[in-house]
Parts: sequence; C-alpha cells; structure tokens
Amino acid sequence: MRGTVLYGPGDVRFEERQDPKILAPTDAILRLAATCVCGSDLWSYRGIQAVTQPTPMGHEYCGIVEEVGGAVKTVKPGQFVVGSFAASDNTCSHCRAGYQSSCAHREWMTGAQAPRLRVPLADGTLVATPEVPSDDLVPSLLAVSDVFGTGWFAADAANVKTGATVAVVGDGAVGLLAVLSAKQMGAERIIAMSRHTSRQKLAREYGATDIVTERGAAGMARIKELTKGVGADSVLECVGTQESMQQAIGAARPGGFVSYVGVPHGVQLDGAGLFFSHVHLHGGPAPVRSYLPKLIDLVLQRKVDPGKVFDLTLPLSQVAEGYRAMDERRAIKALLRP
Amino acid sequence: MRGTVLYGPGDVRFEERQDPKILAPTDAILRLAATCVCGSDLWSYRGIQAVTQPTPMGHEYCGIVEEVGGAVKTVKPGQFVVGSFAASDNTCSHCRAGYQSSCAHREWMTGAQAPRLRVPLADGTLVATPEVPSDDLVPSLLAVSDVFGTGWFAADAANVKTGATVAVVGDGAVGLLAVLSAKQMGAERIIAMSRHTSRQKLAREYGATDIVTERGAAGMARIKELTKGVGADSVLECVGTQESMQQAIGAARPGGFVSYVGVPHGVQLDGAGLFFSHVHLHGGPAPVRSYLPKLIDLVLQRKVDPGKVFDLTLPLSQVAEGYRAMDERRAIKALLRP
Repeated sequence: MRGTVLYGPGDVRFEERQDPKILAPTDAILRLAATCVCGSDLWSYRGIQAVTQPTPMGHEYCGIVEEVGGAVKTVKPGQFVVGSFAASDNTCSHCRAGYQSSCAHREWMTGAQAPRLRVPLADGTLVATPEVPSDDLVPSLLAVSDVFGTGWFAADAANVKTGATVAVVGDGAVGLLAVLSAKQMGAERIIAMSRHTSRQKLAREYGATDIVTERGAAGMARIKELTKGVGADSVLECVGTQESMQQAIGAARPGGFVSYVGVPHGVQLDGAGLFFSHVHLHGGPAPVRSYLPKLIDLVLQRKVDPGKVFDLTLPLSQVAEGYRAMDERRAIKALLRP
Repeated sequence: MRGTVLYGPGDVRFEERQDPKILAPTDAILRLAATCVCGSDLWSYRGIQAVTQPTPMGHEYCGIVEEVGGAVKTVKPGQFVVGSFAASDNTCSHCRAGYQSSCAHREWMTGAQAPRLRVPLADGTLVATPEVPSDDLVPSLLAVSDVFGTGWFAADAANVKTGATVAVVGDGAVGLLAVLSAKQMGAERIIAMSRHTSRQKLAREYGATDIVTERGAAGMARIKELTKGVGADSVLECVGTQESMQQAIGAARPGGFVSYVGVPHGVQLDGAGLFFSHVHLHGGPAPVRSYLPKLIDLVLQRKVDPGKVFDLTLPLSQVAEGYRAMDERRAIKALLRP
C-alpha cells in the first residue's frame, strides 16, 4: 500500500510502505473509512518539533476491522470501529481511573494516514458501532477519534457545568469542538477567541455566544470586561503556546478552571504567578477512550455534527495538499479518503 | 506599644511602634491572645525575599475585640475572634465563590506580632466564637488563623476524599496540619515526607500511616513503590520550592491532584512535563476565611488539636528567638504571648 511519511519540514510524501500485519495477538488490522491531518502534525511539519528520521504520519482513524490477533475478544472482522490516538489496555489502574492516555501499556498511534492500519491493544483501544454507519456519519465518527474527544476533555477538565461562563482559547478544530462540548455540558455563555470569519461562524453554530478577536493582555482584558471584572468560570486552552496559556490563566476567575489539551511547546509557567491566579489547572493528552462510547452515541443519534470541522476533503493520495492547506490556514482540518 | 519589625535578613527587632487605631469605619482593633511566627516569615528573614524597608511582621492572630469602626455590624467589643491572614469583604464575587484570599478588596494582614492589631474589613474577615474560649484552646484557635486553614486548603484543593491515598510534601506546621486535615477528610493512607524524628512523631499522631525520608527522585520512587507503581491520589505540596513541586507532581498518579499552598519561590513549571504528568494542579493563598466557622468548631469541640504544632512558647518580647529557633529548625513553630 501507499502511506504518508514526513521526511522533514514541509516534506510530506505519499509513498509505498509495507502493508500492516498482526504483530501481537492483541492487534487488529483496520481498513480505514477515513483519516485526517491533525493540528499537532503541523508542529513537526513546520519544523518546530524535530523530525530525525522519515516518520509515518497520522493517528486519527475509523473503519472496518479486517483481521484480529488470537487474543482479541471484543472486536471482530467486519465491525466498524473508532479508536483513540493512544492505544490502551483499558484495564490498568490509570485506565480504570479514566486516564487511558496514560495507560501503563500506552502506545501512541502512528501511520494512520494510510488505507490500512495496525491497532495494538485492540480490545482496550477500539469501540465498535452497533452496525456499519451510513457514510455521511464517517466525518463525525472520525472526529471522535481525536479532535472531538480532545475538545470534550478540554470542557471536562475545565469543569464546565450547567450555567457556566466559558472561554475557549484557540479556533482550530479542537477549539471549535471544545465550544460544541461546552455547549453540550450546559454552559450558558461561551466566549470563543477567534480572528477568522469562517471559524467564528462555525463557533457560533456550535454554541458560542460571544466572539473575542483580541489576543494577549487585550484578550484577557476583554474577557474580564465581558464578565463584569470577574473572569470566566472555565477557560479551555486549545493551542499550546506560552501566549495562549498565559491568556487562558489570565482570563479565568480566582477559583476558576483552566484546561490545556494541546502538547505545550516551549511553555514555562511561573509558579508564583500561577499561585496568585488561584486557578485550577488540568490537562494532558485527552483520554479519548473513556469518552468514545458517549461521543459515538451522540454522533449516531445525530445530536452533534463534529464532522463540520472538516472543511476540506481530499483523496488520501493528495495528503500533502492537506498539510499545506492547514499550515496556511486555508482549511480548518483536512479529511482524507483512502 | 512595642511590636515586631524586620529590618533585614536576620534582623528582627521588638521596638516601640504606634498603637493601632481605627482608620476606616470597617476596621476593628483587637487585643491579641496570642500570635506566632510563620514559615513564610522566614523567606524574608533569610533574605530570600528582599526587605527594602523596616517591615512590621506577623499575620496570624486571635483575641478580643477592643473597638470597632462605625460601619462594623457583626463583631462587637468583648468578643473573642479569629481572622484570616488576608482581610476580605466576604461579599464580592470571588469571596462568594469561596476564594476570599482573592477578594476584590483584599488586604494582606501585617503587624500581628504585637499586642494589638488593626483588622480592616472586620465584618468580612473576623469570625467570633460563641463565648470567650478557655485559655488552653488559644494555641489551636491561633493555628486556625493560618497554618491549620492552609493545611485544610491543601487537602481540599487536592481533592482528598474518603479512602484516598495521600502524600504530604513538607513537614513544617502546614505540612503537619495538612496531614491532620487529610485524616479529617477520610484519607485511608497518608504518607508524610519527613526526615525529622519529632515531626515524624507529630505526623503519626495526626494520622500519617507511612513516613518517607527520601527526597527528590528517590522520594518520588518510594511513593510509587508504596502505591504499587500507581502514585498517590492526592499530593499536598507544603514547601514552595522547585524541588518540592517536582516531587509532588512526580508522586501523583495520572489524573491525581496536586495542591500547593506556600508561595512558590523560584519555581518554574515545564508545560510539557506537567501535561504528560496528567495531574490536576490547584493552589494559592488559602481562603482561610471560608474555613473559619468549620475549623473553629472542630477546635471548640476538641475534635482536633492543631495547636500541637507550637512546640515553643515565648513571651512576645522574645520574638527574635522565635525566628532563630524556627530558622535553625529547633522549633516547628513558635507561639508568642503578648
């Protein structure tokens, strides 16, 4: 088969690779219905994170099980499944506490920008739908695999409750789905920080009640102003830079909750500043596995449409154009069809 | 009257100062039953925090109301009161959210190492006992004013629940009272990190089930070992240094809770490290005011004895010896009697 490999900054190739095969009895092989490019793929695409060797790319996936190892019990060939970007056994202490992305046997998924994919720890990682879903649901089910699950974690980790005032920093796919998640959790007011008209529009569709275009100190001041000087109850940081973290912490009320769900790049937090901000801080790689059953159900019942973040659909073979479009912010998120 | 003034590192003087008087109609003047030296006073005593001018010291207090301003309604002359180290109006949004130490009108208390003290925002800051308590309860009531309230916040902010496994970093008065607080909140296992025999003894009296003498990486490893590789549910950081913060974060399980209640000095947190630790982080100046009614009640009912942290009692005029004894770790905490 042909799959996606990153050779260095800006150098994405769709080239011949070995077909995946069962390596451990707990593996499954999937034929993917769709895959996509992640905002986090751009860190290495842009050279901010070093690429030391040709790297198979992609960690978002859903599709049909083709084959399973001898120890796999809960998923079967022919089933449609969605998995997390972090493979987990779903039985260790960390998994049972709801932190499957810190599983004692965690494996980061990679190589999903391809027609077929090996998934380790299949029983613990994959969740099957009751039947093969109709094709128009595939984008939303694919979103569950990472961006929707991560947006959901952003809202959950920031303790979003009914009636809350929420601010979302970042208007990428995760930020937009954090808006959707906050809305689902009952937030009354959702302030989206965005400067891009098309993203503002989707944010409003997903439930944003206010848009703030200012950034940095001005952005924090604007949120304080919108909340009568108090600050937001929950702030969802969906970028991962020093500026966005500071902005998030500065926009929360004392005793408020700040979540951060993108791998921080070059972020240093001053202990004393954080102390006097009086915020709760929680984040990390989203434990998507723990949310899969609920989010799949929301999608199958057509209560939410997270797949709308895919504003560009390409044949998988044009994956390089997907990276370019996202890098240049021409697209929010690129869906790839094998 | 004579009161305590810090002139520079190691230079504590008990000298003539102006008697406090009502400056605002919301003020009260107290005659103190007792006061004490705080671990946080040592930062400036040791020169780690600069002393730019002679500074009146002390922020822990309880005693009899002597006089109140014209706007004070809830406390009256003759009442015995306990207050927080942070004066608060107890009516603003932050106060109503339970974060009185971030009150919109907060004033940090100072000058309490003296026989008499002016307390601003008396209605919002002070809580009166039903009657003047017996003298043997004074040390415990004084502890409520800061160290017990702060230890309680450490346990509360780290989400200590019935059955939890808790680790406490720091064996100063706050750390010891964090042990007591965790015990009150139903923790099943409480691991105290301490190298000092007398402090280990008090930690055990207060409810510690295990003592860890190792520090740094070895300390973290020991806690992981004691928790079968999982880590503690709640870690209470009661020191405020880079080493203690790292130790606390490293000792918690993914999804666990880390609180920090001492002003961090020179602490920088690496965003990516914190992200992958998957911990909840919360701290700040303890909102002691919100806990005063409950903690005063626990003391008056003699259910707890936080005053045991005072292992040295001196006449107020010997305050300098109190600082020396704590600096040299000859005393856990020095109580001063005017």
